[in-house]
Amino acid sequence: MTVTSRDVAKLAGVSQPTVSRALRGDPKVSERTKDVVLKAAEALGYVPSEAGRSLVTRVSKRIGVVVSDLTNPFYPYVIAPLHDELDAHGYRMMVFTERSDRQMAASQLLTGSIDGVVLLTSIIGSPLPAELSRRGLPFVFLNRESGDGRGDAAVVDNVAGGRIAARRLTELGHRRIAGIFGPEDTSTGRERKLGFVMGLADAGIGLADGNIHEGPFEFETGVRGLRALLDQTPQNRPTAVFCGNDVIAIGVLNAAIAAGLRVPQDLSVIGFDNIPLASWESFQLTTIGHDLNAMAANAATLLVRRLSPEGQDAPPQRIVLEPELIERQTLRDLRAGD
Amino acid sequence: MTVTSRDVAKLAGVSQPTVSRALRGDPKVSERTKDVVLKAAEALGYVPSEAGRSLVTRVSKRIGVVVSDLTNPFYPYVIAPLHDELDAHGYRMMVFTERSDRQMAASQLLTGSIDGVVLLTSIIGSPLPAELSRRGLPFVFLNRESGDGRGDAAVVDNVAGGRIAARRLTELGHRRIAGIFGPEDTSTGRERKLGFVMGLADAGIGLADGNIHEGPFEFETGVRGLRALLDQTPQNRPTAVFCGNDVIAIGVLNAAIAAGLRVPQDLSVIGFDNIPLASWESFQLTTIGHDLNAMAANAATLLVRRLSPEGQDAPPQRIVLEPELIERQTLRDLRAGD
Repeated sequence: MTVTSRDVAKLAGVSQPTVSRALRGDPKVSERTKDVVLKAAEALGYVPSEAGRSLVTRVSKRIGVVVSDLTNPFYPYVIAPLHDELDAHGYRMMVFTERSDRQMAASQLLTGSIDGVVLLTSIIGSPLPAELSRRGLPFVFLNRESGDGRGDAAVVDNVAGGRIAARRLTELGHRRIAGIFGPEDTSTGRERKLGFVMGLADAGIGLADGNIHEGPFEFETGVRGLRALLDQTPQNRPTAVFCGNDVIAIGVLNAAIAAGLRVPQDLSVIGFDNIPLASWESFQLTTIGHDLNAMAANAATLLVRRLSPEGQDAPPQRIVLEPELIERQTLRDLRAGD
Repeated sequence: MTVTSRDVAKLAGVSQPTVSRALRGDPKVSERTKDVVLKAAEALGYVPSEAGRSLVTRVSKRIGVVVSDLTNPFYPYVIAPLHDELDAHGYRMMVFTERSDRQMAASQLLTGSIDGVVLLTSIIGSPLPAELSRRGLPFVFLNRESGDGRGDAAVVDNVAGGRIAARRLTELGHRRIAGIFGPEDTSTGRERKLGFVMGLADAGIGLADGNIHEGPFEFETGVRGLRALLDQTPQNRPTAVFCGNDVIAIGVLNAAIAAGLRVPQDLSVIGFDNIPLASWESFQLTTIGHDLNAMAANAATLLVRRLSPEGQDAPPQRIVLEPELIERQTLRDLRAGD
């Protein structure tokens, strides 16, 4: 038989609303009454709330998603399918938006209320995975990895994607090429750059120092990056720019308008991720696409497996999606000479 | 003196890591050991986790933010300042992304782990505010209200904003005017439309049936709305469109490109909210602006007050921001005849 707040009220000799208020810590309830109610609740084994229930059952069926950069339009597009995937597995999702991995690791926010964690914005060398392990909280990397080889991961082959972009630009006859990459302390920033540089090397082309820029995966990085590229003498200016993600590329497209440059006639631009904005008529951005829904589904599957009795001691697993070129209207074919 | 897991281990006759594992529900720990550890923990009053601590202290210092539509770029721009404001008040934030208010109300997700709730995507007649009251969880409406007059609210004067948009269009000489409004079951959708219709009436202008469209606050609503407007005979086509928010307006701008229309020469467009995308070079959207940071700060202040002993019985308070016209490049002046 389930114990209800009514039973507690009877034993404590107070009304049922008083039980609720007392257990909630309402300051209008006297300390003496609170004490009586708490003792009655304990005696009967009454558990008033979900926090209480999870303390008893030790299964909250809740997953925390950590994201430090929610205004980046990439993340909402991953969080939506992740929500649905976890829902299909019977898990509810909570999103934790901290300013940094370090703050998140120091916070008690993740403790006690969730079963596992999806890490969406990991930085290389982040203290968070080790901290989660210490607290016994299973986790999965989604999109980015912290690079220490621990943990399940659902990612895209960023090196291959960077290489595809380089191959396409060189195929089209571009030789003076620039890169506006994501941060070196992210796996996505680092690997996409690596793949791109490797792909250029395949064609015997190098990146001039003045044509390498780097910054957060933000609109402003693209704006600043293009301005810096245009500050060079005209004969050194690149004919094409690879961007670490679509958000940076859209910053470049907007800065190009401000600078009076036509895309692709004066400048070719290629992004990475194929977020919905890339297909907007205003941008028609050629990009390296991958399946955001599949990546989110992979993360959910890996984490749910890890939470099962069979999965908890399994070796870490990475599911790596293959990226592909999505051709739209931001690349110029220099071979045609048009 | 604080009881530690070491004390529990001693009493239960097991190692300290076993205590942690047992209390976490680790399936590798036998049921018998778990039982011994739990009894020892209870006997000593040991509280192992934050969920446990919040059960005792009844203060989690956590705020839940409910949003049903995270892929709408409006919400991340409100969530970021909200995070910082709550942080400044000593509260941590968790975001709950449900598909609807109704699902959220039915969910146990909000129970037990948080002190209060910020409602970001309320619909009119939502069951969620009443459900939160029933559970004794204080809440504040941010941006949208459910319309039953209960609860604190941090909003913008949407009626005034709609009116400003109408006044500006009529001042510029527009007479055939259309509206692509947000949903009728949102306070923002309904009030912006009301203000716009009132503002047109001030100038003796009505909205023709064929020039009224409505839909979710999404990009696609603008795309579909413009297509429907262009399906009319040319002499009935509007010269200007007011959109329920910037996201709809950006959908209109993109659909205009696809339809070969120049903005503002062939069509004037005005939005609402002044999200960062509105100022991008690709759009340069004229819009009704309001201070998103101030609105988020107001919501945080109202909720924190409501959580204080003095605030909990205060009458509901609304803080209403004044909107203003942000002139960019999407309105044509028909008086000049250019």
